[in-house]
Amino acid sequence: MSGIIEELRNQVKEQGNIVRELKAKQASEEEVKVALTLLQELKERLRIETGAPPKGETKKLTLKTPKGTRDYTAKEMSVRSQIFKKITGVFERHGGVTIDTPVFELKEILTGKYGEDSKLIYDLKDQGGEICSLRYDLTVPFARFVAMNNVKNIKRYQIAKVYRRDQPAMTKGRMREFYQCDFDIAGTYDAMVPDAECVRVAVEVLSQLDVGAFVVKVNHRKILDAVFEASGVPEDKVRTISSAVDKLDKQPWAEVKREMTEEKGLSSEVADRIGEYVQLRGGKELLSKLRELAPLMQTTRAQEGVHEMELFFEYAEIYNVLDQVVFDMSLARGLDYYTGIIYEAVLVEESQAAERTQAKEGDESQVRVGSIAAGGRYDTLVGMFSESQGKKATQVPCVGISFGVERIFSIVMSRMQAEQIKSNQTQVYVIAVGGGLLQERMQIATELWDNGIAAEFMYKAKAKLPNQFKACEDEQIPWAVIVGQSEIDEGVVLIKSMLAKDKSQGNGIPVKRADMVAELKQRFANVVG
Amino acid sequence: MSGIIEELRNQVKEQGNIVRELKAKQASEEEVKVALTLLQELKERLRIETGAPPKGETKKLTLKTPKGTRDYTAKEMSVRSQIFKKITGVFERHGGVTIDTPVFELKEILTGKYGEDSKLIYDLKDQGGEICSLRYDLTVPFARFVAMNNVKNIKRYQIAKVYRRDQPAMTKGRMREFYQCDFDIAGTYDAMVPDAECVRVAVEVLSQLDVGAFVVKVNHRKILDAVFEASGVPEDKVRTISSAVDKLDKQPWAEVKREMTEEKGLSSEVADRIGEYVQLRGGKELLSKLRELAPLMQTTRAQEGVHEMELFFEYAEIYNVLDQVVFDMSLARGLDYYTGIIYEAVLVEESQAAERTQAKEGDESQVRVGSIAAGGRYDTLVGMFSESQGKKATQVPCVGISFGVERIFSIVMSRMQAEQIKSNQTQVYVIAVGGGLLQERMQIATELWDNGIAAEFMYKAKAKLPNQFKACEDEQIPWAVIVGQSEIDEGVVLIKSMLAKDKSQGNGIPVKRADMVAELKQRFANVVG
Repeated sequence: MSGIIEELRNQVKEQGNIVRELKAKQASEEEVKVALTLLQELKERLRIETGAPPKGETKKLTLKTPKGTRDYTAKEMSVRSQIFKKITGVFERHGGVTIDTPVFELKEILTGKYGEDSKLIYDLKDQGGEICSLRYDLTVPFARFVAMNNVKNIKRYQIAKVYRRDQPAMTKGRMREFYQCDFDIAGTYDAMVPDAECVRVAVEVLSQLDVGAFVVKVNHRKILDAVFEASGVPEDKVRTISSAVDKLDKQPWAEVKREMTEEKGLSSEVADRIGEYVQLRGGKELLSKLRELAPLMQTTRAQEGVHEMELFFEYAEIYNVLDQVVFDMSLARGLDYYTGIIYEAVLVEESQAAERTQAKEGDESQVRVGSIAAGGRYDTLVGMFSESQGKKATQVPCVGISFGVERIFSIVMSRMQAEQIKSNQTQVYVIAVGGGLLQERMQIATELWDNGIAAEFMYKAKAKLPNQFKACEDEQIPWAVIVGQSEIDEGVVLIKSMLAKDKSQGNGIPVKRADMVAELKQRFANVVG
Repeated sequence: MSGIIEELRNQVKEQGNIVRELKAKQASEEEVKVALTLLQELKERLRIETGAPPKGETKKLTLKTPKGTRDYTAKEMSVRSQIFKKITGVFERHGGVTIDTPVFELKEILTGKYGEDSKLIYDLKDQGGEICSLRYDLTVPFARFVAMNNVKNIKRYQIAKVYRRDQPAMTKGRMREFYQCDFDIAGTYDAMVPDAECVRVAVEVLSQLDVGAFVVKVNHRKILDAVFEASGVPEDKVRTISSAVDKLDKQPWAEVKREMTEEKGLSSEVADRIGEYVQLRGGKELLSKLRELAPLMQTTRAQEGVHEMELFFEYAEIYNVLDQVVFDMSLARGLDYYTGIIYEAVLVEESQAAERTQAKEGDESQVRVGSIAAGGRYDTLVGMFSESQGKKATQVPCVGISFGVERIFSIVMSRMQAEQIKSNQTQVYVIAVGGGLLQERMQIATELWDNGIAAEFMYKAKAKLPNQFKACEDEQIPWAVIVGQSEIDEGVVLIKSMLAKDKSQGNGIPVKRADMVAELKQRFANVVG
């Protein structure tokens, strides 16, 4: 380590000389700035290597997690595990298998996949070797996995953390490290069959988690592209106009139009034509309406998109999810890689949920409470990767859904009371009467562990009885095994249910020491059964 | 994004000018080198931002995971989940609760905790804001969590990935991203009670996972420090001599002595005195032997260490783990933060395992096959964090054990045949006779999902019968529900066990459509029972 420090000290010295020389010969401001920046970087590296405090601060650690990240306590983890278990249950009910990919990828794998959001990608420092970035989502690594391993079809789920350098000030405390729960179906199949199943998976998950009323907004990239084409949006403005449209769930049309015309240079007429389309919202019947819009339906894209959406509604009906689905033509989704149907599940106020089937054009009242899951079809992403290998591109069409579990977690957590959450799985607390008997408690615990029973005791040679009972209660441990010298002499232990209100058990029911394990197992079974 | 690119282009131009000027005025080699390095860095950043291929390569993505990382397939995940489940089971049997911490920490949290290995820490790029690093282990983040949240006692486990920039060439393909499974007990308790339980946890986990013969080597930092003190090692050489001693499991004494004397400047006499101590190995009886070594026992450290190890052996006997424990005075462990007992579980050849109780002094034959779990007591780490807050240091003594699950995974995986591993949980495959009936299959699947039954079908409107059966078999799905037009007309479905050798079921047993779910559940129960 001292080698690095010494080298850095030399570099700081040298760079300081360079800066002084530049200033002396009155070099341009730019030149001095560049040299100064490097000097500051070198100094900062030196500071970190030597473990010195940041400039102007006293030597004092900041005892916190990095901005946008957080710890989860044992009780929170208990709730989170239950959520994951329910989600995993649904994914597996639909044939999902899980895979794992590294938390960072080669940076070039992520390049060009996220449109304007690419700036939010976390990079690893270049410490020599490959340039890597933390994963931004689970979709791109999944596509990389499929291409790299020549997978032809898979239904995979993955529950893992992703990383985005969001500015919390701008995005209302959005986390920079958060979990995504993804379910994706890869393979060449008939149109809309797996797509409709993904929406069904969304409805199953959100119903099971009991997050309140929600709707799944659906749209189709081909229809959206046709809207832009028919409205006269220049090809090079499609992406940026699309992201303006996507804001219609948060902003009124007038505001979105202003962005299109004033900020993005679209003519007012073109914007108005877009406005007529993207404010359309409804159910299956909207498709017949679209069929009647001649200018739109002239494009092949529109015909393909509308045909696929007809199939989607047919399958959604069989899958019993029509009540939750809203065809919303303003839904655009920011990511570059979608090619077909797109969807987004949002929580809505109860009253709005009741009215959602009567949603009127341009109805601004149904504001988004919160996006909670989203996804769509991406048919060319895997091909982009396989093509890069010099081989002929192998297209593996994909469709998927991703759940943002942090918001779900907040909702579930807010419904529970902390003291009701049990975070351990301990079944038995071993208690000594008379203050000591450490070795006896250890022996009993060993016998319980040997028989697969979760057991704890107080790690003190002399443990006071009230303290032992309090620990048992605090940890919500359902059973106590109690021993004192007289029990040892008689070859028994006392078993006491800590949950039962039954006063007749007194200090516990005596059981022969040899029967302890069998007795306990009997009692566990009775409680469960 | 284009703003960044433009800025980078300008910076490259400016830095190019600086380099030319430096060369023109024949600046020192060092100066030119520093300026050139910055120029190259700027060019590389520009290349990445523009998505251009690396110099000298054609535009071709590298379709791989970063060095030292890997994907896990569905079958591998299935095996890994089973391993995690067993480990979690043991941790919870001992009262463990789980927490979660971010994958990266403020760099200063990790600084000064890992001795010579600090150079292996992965840093995040400075993209403005805090300087962060990927976690190197789960212990330091745990201590940070305990200090930050004022936790007074907790038994926590955590199964998560950690990151180390090992050079695979130097460390035989060690991974840079790998899982650790940690169990730690924090709190002020009586000596050696939780410590012995951690060793018991190690023995339970490794026995359950059936990884083959193993021993748990134990030693005590205070005894080791006393050895160095009694041998006459200067205070400032203790750490480096300690890491030389730690190599005794891989190198003969002569080689370690050479490192101590030639590389680290210790006198031959001091090295020999150390050698007499650290080649001692055995069981509980070794403690009596140490008690007789007057020069060693003069130090308070030695007396404390030996007393604690006596307690440890007493408890290890109650916990039934004496057969697996070896007192090995050469065990040193590299990390800075250990303060008491240290231990390491290693796999041994079966023959060695049988002989381990007769291990002789200086016996080099018992070479380490592989370290598989390690840990120890660290009583001051939490205090270091709480103290940093300007508050009085709150000491929360800790002891823990960490399992390196990658090696365990390799061992378990090598015992299994890939085709025997089932990665999905699907119970029923819905099959149509006669090629089509997509909507009918969808309806049946919906009914199964509604009733919590995991079901799949082929995502094709026209599905050939042999292809459907093949998919069902390939995925090892135990039951098929089969329909054709005649079954629909009769209001039945056929249920067929795909695992049963029973030929009498023919194409399947007809069951009334209304009874399908109940019948299937009955059959699942029979198979399980």
